[in-house]
Amino acid sequence: MRDKFRPSHADFTYQQKFGLRDHRGGGRSSARETVGRVAAGAIAKKILAQRTTSGLGGVEIRAFLTQVHDITAPADALVNFPTLAEVEASPVRCPHLPTAEKMIERIKAVRSEGDSVGGVIECRVRGLPAGLGVPVFDRLEADLAKAMLSLPATKGFEIGSGFAGARLRGSEHNDAFENRSGAVRTATNRSGGVQGGISNGEEIVFRVAFKPTATILQLQATVDKTGASTELMGRGRHDPCVVPRAVPIVEAMAALVLLDHWLRQSAQCGTFKF
Amino acid sequence: MRDKFRPSHADFTYQQKFGLRDHRGGGRSSARETVGRVAAGAIAKKILAQRTTSGLGGVEIRAFLTQVHDITAPADALVNFPTLAEVEASPVRCPHLPTAEKMIERIKAVRSEGDSVGGVIECRVRGLPAGLGVPVFDRLEADLAKAMLSLPATKGFEIGSGFAGARLRGSEHNDAFENRSGAVRTATNRSGGVQGGISNGEEIVFRVAFKPTATILQLQATVDKTGASTELMGRGRHDPCVVPRAVPIVEAMAALVLLDHWLRQSAQCGTFKF
Amino acid sequence: MRDKFRPSHADFTYQQKFGLRDHRGGGRSSARETVGRVAAGAIAKKILAQRTTSGLGGVEIRAFLTQVHDITAPADALVNFPTLAEVEASPVRCPHLPTAEKMIERIKAVRSEGDSVGGVIECRVRGLPAGLGVPVFDRLEADLAKAMLSLPATKGFEIGSGFAGARLRGSEHNDAFENRSGAVRTATNRSGGVQGGISNGEEIVFRVAFKPTATILQLQATVDKTGASTELMGRGRHDPCVVPRAVPIVEAMAALVLLDHWLRQSAQCGTFKF
Amino acid sequence: MRDKFRPSHADFTYQQKFGLRDHRGGGRSSARETVGRVAAGAIAKKILAQRTTSGLGGVEIRAFLTQVHDITAPADALVNFPTLAEVEASPVRCPHLPTAEKMIERIKAVRSEGDSVGGVIECRVRGLPAGLGVPVFDRLEADLAKAMLSLPATKGFEIGSGFAGARLRGSEHNDAFENRSGAVRTATNRSGGVQGGISNGEEIVFRVAFKPTATILQLQATVDKTGASTELMGRGRHDPCVVPRAVPIVEAMAALVLLDHWLRQSAQCGTFKF
Repeated sequence: MRDKFRPSHADFTYQQKFGLRDHRGGGRSSARETVGRVAAGAIAKKILAQRTTSGLGGVEIRAFLTQVHDITAPADALVNFPTLAEVEASPVRCPHLPTAEKMIERIKAVRSEGDSVGGVIECRVRGLPAGLGVPVFDRLEADLAKAMLSLPATKGFEIGSGFAGARLRGSEHNDAFENRSGAVRTATNRSGGVQGGISNGEEIVFRVAFKPTATILQLQATVDKTGASTELMGRGRHDPCVVPRAVPIVEAMAALVLLDHWLRQSAQCGTFKF
Repeated sequence: MRDKFRPSHADFTYQQKFGLRDHRGGGRSSARETVGRVAAGAIAKKILAQRTTSGLGGVEIRAFLTQVHDITAPADALVNFPTLAEVEASPVRCPHLPTAEKMIERIKAVRSEGDSVGGVIECRVRGLPAGLGVPVFDRLEADLAKAMLSLPATKGFEIGSGFAGARLRGSEHNDAFENRSGAVRTATNRSGGVQGGISNGEEIVFRVAFKPTATILQLQATVDKTGASTELMGRGRHDPCVVPRAVPIVEAMAALVLLDHWLRQSAQCGTFKF
Repeated sequence: MRDKFRPSHADFTYQQKFGLRDHRGGGRSSARETVGRVAAGAIAKKILAQRTTSGLGGVEIRAFLTQVHDITAPADALVNFPTLAEVEASPVRCPHLPTAEKMIERIKAVRSEGDSVGGVIECRVRGLPAGLGVPVFDRLEADLAKAMLSLPATKGFEIGSGFAGARLRGSEHNDAFENRSGAVRTATNRSGGVQGGISNGEEIVFRVAFKPTATILQLQATVDKTGASTELMGRGRHDPCVVPRAVPIVEAMAALVLLDHWLRQSAQCGTFKF
Repeated sequence: MRDKFRPSHADFTYQQKFGLRDHRGGGRSSARETVGRVAAGAIAKKILAQRTTSGLGGVEIRAFLTQVHDITAPADALVNFPTLAEVEASPVRCPHLPTAEKMIERIKAVRSEGDSVGGVIECRVRGLPAGLGVPVFDRLEADLAKAMLSLPATKGFEIGSGFAGARLRGSEHNDAFENRSGAVRTATNRSGGVQGGISNGEEIVFRVAFKPTATILQLQATVDKTGASTELMGRGRHDPCVVPRAVPIVEAMAALVLLDHWLRQSAQCGTFKF
């Protein structure tokens, strides 16, 4: 790997940009760098958990797998906000255990072939008050999208109805407002908790797509540092599916984005409300 | 609309955050604000178009519709980089004309029912050299994702293989490197032009999902500013599908992100290469 | 002036950096650009004026001249916080009228010779609570210094004892704390209202040095755009002393810095105090 | 010191802002935090030293003491750019040795009385090309001023003629341009190397005023954390004059500011010059 570029890895682009790279473990392109994000996110989560607003408990963030390869949790299996225990009940961090078992089998099968698979993480946030975010540029969903696409191996982000929402009519998609116990709430949550860039007090719901791990234990066509055609056979310990390990990273980045916006909200409210 | 919140519009969240709102046209939540982005993007495009790197012409950015409601352009219809003329050949800005015609019919039908539909825009960039972007945080795809989700009515972003990539194996997804006319290129482009947060010299390809317009000319359940349940009937001129009009906005935001990263690249290369 | 560089003006550096310049009035280097700062500062002042903290009225900012050329207001003449009326009582904005009269005479004399003079503005802020600022990097005095040196024609900034403080011993310079009506206050104010980068609740007191106007109506040696030696005779309307007109600009920049720090303070206190 | 506030130290303001503080050594308010700045500055200096532009060697930064208490180096003693050896020839880092000896004596005398003194550091930069900086807001001198006032114990910043320049006429202050060996240069350097916020290719010359150390070994009036009047007797090892130790910190911050602006310059030139 010292002289050959792994297909779809950061090897080539890093070398191209910086004129050097550390091939051992990926160097700065390694997902190891996310350890600092998780550490910072842990503090952000603690602060958010203590935030209580009228009628709401603290802010709770929960990410989990809904898909590995083509195995997806059934839509009606994950209606409730999963507990941490439910997520951690299986090593793939899918709270729907029958699906989790299939995911584990698939990952084992893929590993035995020296191959890899991708997947999807869903993240939900409850207890967040309405009002976080801004109408233009730093919309709440924009900052969440950037935070998620800043993670290694991510290829997509969607919030609420996401890409499926593009297939709906307005009359099907709109979340009707209703008065529930004195609070303005929405009857459905296709908005995913944000409207016009600002949280509406409903659950934040977003999903992140992860591609299959680039490093596989199969022979692949590539080029070396001189540009000559060659082949590369991956070796060493490589995750056949990194997605379960990305769950705490997704939660950490969500916590950092939400706390940043809470700081901005406090700045504005604390200063401008007389 | 002065006293009632439009479902899935920014009305409620804006009022909740700022304690006031301008109901006429949406105020600062109106997509009218994007006019400044398009103006700035026009300058960025001109600069990018003049950038030439070895073997490449200037940078060219082209966005177009691939989907309205459930009408999608066939996958093999948009293989080539569309010309501006092809995009502008139909008012829905889908360069595959048979699909464009169906889209137009659908939008007409939906309008006649006072309803609305969403859609998907694809954006491609060619002529961008390898090396733009950074490995951590401000990854090229992260900044593109934020730029796109900062636009009104967007619910999703994906780059390259996107959400579909999560269904592939590594052996299917990886883009093999090859030497083409002396340059390191990839045989396929599931990466969408970025690897490890940095451009690899291939076409940047990303897609943005837009939800159906929130304002519809149908009776909807909602609440008013006092929180009381009520109904709202939209009136006035409202787009049944905003997606065709978002095409230049997507291009403008892409141009701004890419030029920003070019500035960063020049800063680093111009200063640190001796 | 189209082809010749005015000595000590931004002509040469602007041309050198950008490869072009607008010689008519200085273009972007003209102090006209500060009109936007004054407009924004007016809003910031209004907000600060409404801020009241325990025992304090709103924040009040007052800048005024203490020096023109070698004419300085006597040290004991400006002990009290001047009123706006006192500052505006003379066109040179020095609240000590005997000094103001001498300043006016001097400026008239200098103008008749086609020459110019510099001066010093002092700015005081009262009503600011203790706690604004941070210990490292964005210290309150650091942001004030940047704001002031970002103004045209400025050559120096000092807070509290300033350069004179370097001539004192610690035993002479230290501001003893005392309990005044239940509040922790300092007996003297050589600190100028900041300690360790953070406001201490006393008056903020800083001074800004302005050089004499570069454009003078005398013959000066210079070079033209080809680099050839030549002479330049200034023409047109040019202030022999810009300092009086800089008073509202200094106040505006101070207001913007202080409100920024107030926003940061609210962010932190509003979010982290449970 | 655990319960009493040291006069003119960050004790009170830090406690007031954060509700806690570490009295041992000053915690985050200690000048120990500058070690990171010096480390980063060392890298910046190395990069700047390698930058060569037409006719110039690399960028060189040299700071040194010109004043301790009321002992000042004679104006004509420091005309030439001092060598590092000259600066390091005495522990007070004043390259004019007769002055350095007097400074040392004074510091010894002051220490024996448990008192402290302040001083002034001058910093010069040579080899910097014309064109660094911008006309508005982030002017080169504005960023230098912020960098310097972000250092502990600083009370003032001046560039070129500084406060003394306010006492001059334009006809005395202006730096005439001349053609020297084909380059546009100034005959004098009252501008201190910047005009209109942008470097002009001459030596950058600025000075920073440091107050006397707050912690002295004498009995001082103060209050304790309950607000009660009390007295405090400083103990332990405390510098009677921190200024000599601030010399590398001033150089480091100057290097960081200049490299930042060089990065910005490269961004603009590398991207926009075709």
